[in-house]
Amino acid sequence: MLELSTTSLTIVGVIAGIAIVALVIAVLLRRQVLAADTGSPRMQEIAGAIEEGAQAFLRRQFRTLGIFAVIVFGLLFLLPADPEVKIGRAIAFLFGAGFSAAIGYLGMSLAVRANVRVAAVASKPDGRRIGAGIAFRTGGVVGMGVVGLGLLGAAGVVLVYRGDAPAVLEGFGFGAALLAMFMRVGGGIFTKAADVGADLVGKVEQGIPEDDPRNAATIADNVGDNVGDCAGMAADLFESYAVVLVASLILGRAAMGEQGLILPLIVTAVGAVVAALGVVITKVRGSESGLTAINRGFYVSAVVGVLLAAIATLVYLPTTFGAIQGVSEDLADHPGNPQLVVIAAVAIGVVLAGVILWLTGYYTGTTSGPTRHVASTSRTGAATVVLSGIGVGFSSAVYTAGIIAAAICGVFLIAGGNVWLALFLVALAGCGLLTTVGVIVAMDTFGPISDNAQGVAEMSGEVDEAGAQVLTDLDAVGNTTKAITKGIAIATAVLAATALFGSYADAVTTALEEIGDAGAATADGVVAAMVSYDIVSPITLVGVILGGATVFLFSGLAIDAVTRAAGAIVFEVRRQFREMPGIMTGKERPDYARVVDMCTKDSLRELATPGLLAAFAPIAVGFGLGVGPLAGFLAGTIGAGVLMAVFLANSGGAWDNAKKIVEDGHYGGKGSEAHEATIIGDTVGDPFKDTAGPAINPLIKVMNLVSLLIAPAVVQLSVPADANHGLRIGIALAAAAIALLAVLASRRRAGKVDTAEDIDNAIATEAAGS
Amino acid sequence: MLELSTTSLTIVGVIAGIAIVALVIAVLLRRQVLAADTGSPRMQEIAGAIEEGAQAFLRRQFRTLGIFAVIVFGLLFLLPADPEVKIGRAIAFLFGAGFSAAIGYLGMSLAVRANVRVAAVASKPDGRRIGAGIAFRTGGVVGMGVVGLGLLGAAGVVLVYRGDAPAVLEGFGFGAALLAMFMRVGGGIFTKAADVGADLVGKVEQGIPEDDPRNAATIADNVGDNVGDCAGMAADLFESYAVVLVASLILGRAAMGEQGLILPLIVTAVGAVVAALGVVITKVRGSESGLTAINRGFYVSAVVGVLLAAIATLVYLPTTFGAIQGVSEDLADHPGNPQLVVIAAVAIGVVLAGVILWLTGYYTGTTSGPTRHVASTSRTGAATVVLSGIGVGFSSAVYTAGIIAAAICGVFLIAGGNVWLALFLVALAGCGLLTTVGVIVAMDTFGPISDNAQGVAEMSGEVDEAGAQVLTDLDAVGNTTKAITKGIAIATAVLAATALFGSYADAVTTALEEIGDAGAATADGVVAAMVSYDIVSPITLVGVILGGATVFLFSGLAIDAVTRAAGAIVFEVRRQFREMPGIMTGKERPDYARVVDMCTKDSLRELATPGLLAAFAPIAVGFGLGVGPLAGFLAGTIGAGVLMAVFLANSGGAWDNAKKIVEDGHYGGKGSEAHEATIIGDTVGDPFKDTAGPAINPLIKVMNLVSLLIAPAVVQLSVPADANHGLRIGIALAAAAIALLAVLASRRRAGKVDTAEDIDNAIATEAAGS
Repeated sequence: MLELSTTSLTIVGVIAGIAIVALVIAVLLRRQVLAADTGSPRMQEIAGAIEEGAQAFLRRQFRTLGIFAVIVFGLLFLLPADPEVKIGRAIAFLFGAGFSAAIGYLGMSLAVRANVRVAAVASKPDGRRIGAGIAFRTGGVVGMGVVGLGLLGAAGVVLVYRGDAPAVLEGFGFGAALLAMFMRVGGGIFTKAADVGADLVGKVEQGIPEDDPRNAATIADNVGDNVGDCAGMAADLFESYAVVLVASLILGRAAMGEQGLILPLIVTAVGAVVAALGVVITKVRGSESGLTAINRGFYVSAVVGVLLAAIATLVYLPTTFGAIQGVSEDLADHPGNPQLVVIAAVAIGVVLAGVILWLTGYYTGTTSGPTRHVASTSRTGAATVVLSGIGVGFSSAVYTAGIIAAAICGVFLIAGGNVWLALFLVALAGCGLLTTVGVIVAMDTFGPISDNAQGVAEMSGEVDEAGAQVLTDLDAVGNTTKAITKGIAIATAVLAATALFGSYADAVTTALEEIGDAGAATADGVVAAMVSYDIVSPITLVGVILGGATVFLFSGLAIDAVTRAAGAIVFEVRRQFREMPGIMTGKERPDYARVVDMCTKDSLRELATPGLLAAFAPIAVGFGLGVGPLAGFLAGTIGAGVLMAVFLANSGGAWDNAKKIVEDGHYGGKGSEAHEATIIGDTVGDPFKDTAGPAINPLIKVMNLVSLLIAPAVVQLSVPADANHGLRIGIALAAAAIALLAVLASRRRAGKVDTAEDIDNAIATEAAGS
Repeated sequence: MLELSTTSLTIVGVIAGIAIVALVIAVLLRRQVLAADTGSPRMQEIAGAIEEGAQAFLRRQFRTLGIFAVIVFGLLFLLPADPEVKIGRAIAFLFGAGFSAAIGYLGMSLAVRANVRVAAVASKPDGRRIGAGIAFRTGGVVGMGVVGLGLLGAAGVVLVYRGDAPAVLEGFGFGAALLAMFMRVGGGIFTKAADVGADLVGKVEQGIPEDDPRNAATIADNVGDNVGDCAGMAADLFESYAVVLVASLILGRAAMGEQGLILPLIVTAVGAVVAALGVVITKVRGSESGLTAINRGFYVSAVVGVLLAAIATLVYLPTTFGAIQGVSEDLADHPGNPQLVVIAAVAIGVVLAGVILWLTGYYTGTTSGPTRHVASTSRTGAATVVLSGIGVGFSSAVYTAGIIAAAICGVFLIAGGNVWLALFLVALAGCGLLTTVGVIVAMDTFGPISDNAQGVAEMSGEVDEAGAQVLTDLDAVGNTTKAITKGIAIATAVLAATALFGSYADAVTTALEEIGDAGAATADGVVAAMVSYDIVSPITLVGVILGGATVFLFSGLAIDAVTRAAGAIVFEVRRQFREMPGIMTGKERPDYARVVDMCTKDSLRELATPGLLAAFAPIAVGFGLGVGPLAGFLAGTIGAGVLMAVFLANSGGAWDNAKKIVEDGHYGGKGSEAHEATIIGDTVGDPFKDTAGPAINPLIKVMNLVSLLIAPAVVQLSVPADANHGLRIGIALAAAAIALLAVLASRRRAGKVDTAEDIDNAIATEAAGS
């Protein structure tokens, strides 16, 4: 085990202390939120039903995912590694997964109590300010939790495993990413099945408002906001945080030895301090909108973050690379000043976060051009709304991807073209970007809470018109903040994945060196192509195509799962309206629990397919085609992933807010044909922005980490002269078969509902019933 | 100049003869079509109006594109090359562009006469069989024209330039691809602006049927079928043909010397013979559907094609690589049998065409699961129709991309991992795929003609119900064949682009060798990264991201252009209904010409932006980041391009046929809510499948060929120690600025229509008017 100096250990100890302070702040903020007025008994009853549904879903989801986690825990022991690292990595995997689950649970459990409190204050004087405060503070709890647990995990591993920490941390990041991906997919399917189902019958068919208590899917819809947009998102951001840290530590150690290992922890600890500051200073002043306050909080904490990180770097690093102990050979005579280089990279990350914040706000905000353009196309019907939203999504994806690409190029130039330094700096830019994560999480949590508060208010019927308008405004802010968080999350994914590429190449090189001359040097023909990163080699290009295809397939599966599950909800809600005529007159209460239960079952069943695809696609490509094409595969997933994720998130956000523009009285206002057109747009956008889009972020990381973990095994089975190609191809085929069977199984489920006879029967039954 | 043997020249002479025979067959088929009954005076009047509009559009389009072509002709002289090659390449560019335009014009000019003939026979006894025959034969003319002109061009260049032919042919392929891209985009915007505009006012607002003569946009809609789906498609397939041939000849010469140069011409000449056979044997028998006959024609010609190509290869090639004169050094001791290797590659190409044919038919046909599933989701409204169509599009894209990837892997294994041989074989697989191009073009042309025939019949009111049903059936077949052609075209794009990658790498290597030790060998830092193909290098990855982004931006621009242009048509058609109340009662004739004129102007204005983007994005990336990232860029465009193209084509095809399923009486039939939902889906799909999707195919090739052409210049400006980095960065910035300004200009056009006041004014005007 590589030992660390006492200074380093002291610093890491202090950082662990900062992490614990962050967690204490989270507890204090939580108390503040819970101290607020809890509203009328009717409101509490509704909020109680939502809380119950959310708890039940998460419990069942954790049970399902627990099984997955145990299997993966076992599989980790099959991969070649140093025994001590192997055990540490597997245990760290469990911690990563556990923390990811815990932060999701924490977020959800507070959000379901905050919603009723926001609803309760809405009609009171100064309700907008206080409501926004409660919602934002709840987000603050989650934000401080993310920062605290992430930092604590990383610092803990470093304290225990010292120099071996990077390899062990791979497990931590993998656990966090895997669990977050499942929570994003499962929660995303739940929330949108309920939302789409509720809207299709309620708004479109029966013409009753959103969150009307006569709609049987309305409680499920509100449960969904908490399990998807809140728990899933919190886990997702935790995972982003963990994976960026992991990548930075691995690359830091490779580039700058011990100081490179500690530096990312310092930058991230600065982020924890900044997050606390951001959460405390973000307050709505006077009549300004919630978004203005949030933006101010973000920009202030971004500037403070850069300053603090700069000071810390100036203190911690020497002025020449040669003076850094354990610096890598090719960096020793690098002409740059490591202090300035690191500060510039961190600053690029922070600026990137700011630009994405602005750009996403521009594309999805209710006051800016693109969303107003989408709203204006409602005059020519739903088709043009869908088309213009897709156009907005495409362009916003391109500009976001372009800006991320520009940031990477900037970092690369700062590194003077030294690839290893560049990779470390990309990871540090990710750390810089994440210094603002506390505020970001708080912003995001704002969305589901204000959405829920609106639901509680509408269902209880106890909030007056002014109060309802307050909640509508908060909800519109929530739509934009949710889109912004997704943009930032995907930016971290690209930076982390780019950096992890370096770790991947390093793992491959190490594995090839172990084989020695007998393997790598004499490889030719097919084997040479299997280890070639050359993008002009046909099978590397095949890897790129397959990587992009995996992103498309994953997105399609997630969207299909929502369409299917929502269809089932539609039939159930229709059935309740038909069989219980008292519902419409308000005399009978719909069976909310049954819809919640259906959503729970469907989403847990549906999450397996995309999950298995993400885990097994890189295994099939890696063992089947080699480490070179697997690198191409990862490049394809990053390229297609960032574009698809932003496209899905922003088109969805634009549709949602275009609907709000029409509801504010434009183009005919509520109940007009234009309104109906925007409702269709919004419904199309639902699974885009809340199921498929956000799940791509953890997807990219899961596939990267799986590739990193299997790389040595792939090399061992493909390169040596006596390589076991039979076993290699067997593993590839088995992995491909598992992924394919999972996809076919989900198709079969679709087929079951949709054979021609079933459809005709369903129609006949419905016709007979009505 | 490398001389060719007399044997080779004789073979090429014979091939040129075959090309001329193919053209003669096209003339004969054309006479057969024109000999058919031309219908009633009313029908002829309508067809005349369509013809006039189509001619006017193409004339104006060619005038615009002529200016572009002349500018590019001049720019080609700025690029470094041997003077003789430079002149030849520029002239070949003009020929490629001219042939592309000619084939588009030829297809359109016959299609506008065939439509009325198909409409005229529909009500007659045996109308289905005869109508399908006329439509298919018209396609045959275009198919033979594509094959004849493509082969004639390639053979002609080889006869004149002998061994220098490959470099000169780059110009030929580039001209064909550039013109085809513009024709695809311009025609695609025209056709869908008219179609969407007509549907939105006609079907959705006024509730009148498609092609109702009271709709002012109906003539424009039919003109669009001819200029977009027919002329644009014909140019596109010609371009595919030309570029695959170019890639094969370049790589063939590199791998196998003279015989490698001639072999692709032989395989393609076999394709010409097979195409003639396919067109002649494809006849509808008894009561079978048009699709069955077309499929039979395809499969028969595919099998015959493989057999003939195999015989030709066995005769032409020796049994060992060593026996091939001028074989490349690393291939000389390759253990395989070149005959078998080549036959296997060609067979893989043909099989790939067959699989794509089947797969696309499965995903978009009216009788198979996916489209029926989309139709069934109409029971829950437009949103679920849109979502399920997107799901179908995503999965079909993944499977199509997966199969193309599998074909490349297969070829790679056959080549025993020898990269150069593999690249040549990929190109040969493309030639194999294109042996079926004659039948494919005929299949595709079927679509717009039957669509138009339906239009003529509806407008004239002179076709009885049975005849209308015949035309509806033919139109549904057309929807599927159109989707199939797009699948095949994109497969050729991937194969051609993969192969061109090899030419690209070769061009870079040659340029680096010319610089010698002073440059490449000593390059380090940033410059080393600029010439690195390593996918794990951050800026190569940036290239991949930017490549994918370009595809997304291009797609978004094309879709936005249609949304904008269609919006203008909607307001115009509404205005005519309002100001000329006699239209609705049939007493007044709408002003068809004005709508045609608007579509013409709008589409010609809108085509510039995507065109400039395609041409200048690779220039910006190449000069800005270097040849390595440019390779990453190309990989990104191929990966994202194939997925996006198939997604757009197949989701559009599925929506179109889902609408047909409902119109056939399912889920409530015509006029039901389900019908309205599928109309919305179909309208969303219109710009997907007929504007953005098909234009991606030439886009990929244009970007590849631009990169190939600029590669030596990029190397000269970036690698040598005294490289002019100022000029390099200046060129990159200028190219980026041109692309960006073009995009912003199109946004400004959007902005002009959509400022808040304009919208409010527009609404006020309309409200006052109605």
